[in-house]
Amino acid sequence: MTFALHPKLAADSTYVCDLPVSQVRLSHNAAFPWLILIPRYADVSEIIDLDVSLQQQLWQEIARSSQIMRDLFQPTKLNVANLGNVVSQLHIHVIARFNSDPAWPNPVWNSQITASYSVVEQQQRIKQLNNAFKG
Amino acid sequence: MTFALHPKLAADSTYVCDLPVSQVRLSHNAAFPWLILIPRYADVSEIIDLDVSLQQQLWQEIARSSQIMRDLFQPTKLNVANLGNVVSQLHIHVIARFNSDPAWPNPVWNSQITASYSVVEQQQRIKQLNNAFKG
Repeated sequence: MTFALHPKLAADSTYVCDLPVSQVRLSHNAAFPWLILIPRYADVSEIIDLDVSLQQQLWQEIARSSQIMRDLFQPTKLNVANLGNVVSQLHIHVIARFNSDPAWPNPVWNSQITASYSVVEQQQRIKQLNNAFKG
Repeated sequence: MTFALHPKLAADSTYVCDLPVSQVRLSHNAAFPWLILIPRYADVSEIIDLDVSLQQQLWQEIARSSQIMRDLFQPTKLNVANLGNVVSQLHIHVIARFNSDPAWPNPVWNSQITASYSVVEQQQRIKQLNNAFKG
């Protein structure tokens, strides 16, 4: 079956770039710098559902995304997680957390804390991330 | 500096076994089958702080732990996460989640939902996990 992005992931985030395994997207929740990596494979909900070589590539993409988020935002801590209790399509969160952010130290999911990017802010953020992934 | 387990991780979980990079522990919260992997390296709070070869080994240990949790408990979904907002010592959660569990579909952290193992239950669970990791 062909890969198709889950409608909720599509609605909650914007395309940044494609890596070999994952599509990288930026969460619309501007309260936290927040990437979502979605492997472009159909019917996969767990990392261990992927072939081992794809898992290895995915881990590299998670590590690269983590490094980029740390370099760009210098967070107190990265939060890296595959949950998928609501949307089972495999997706991995890479979030820059700050001891000054409104949800700290709690997890961001289900925190009810949201903020919106302006169009300009979102465009700038996407461009900044795009350049980092090209670098 | 020598590796030392953070007191909160020590208090909240019990030793299961050592893998090449991580110490595997069982959370004391019996509401969810819940492993915690702690790389035995001092002063590391992010996965990307580890040398690349150690990261690769750690990913394998996370995948193996995920497979064991899925085989033993057949959960609706695995939750795999490095947060560390409260305890910065690097630790990775591998949790078996069920659409019937008391926190579903919310994350378990900060859910206020806890349960205790009896001594016998905990011993059995540790033995079961130990056998799985030996297998």
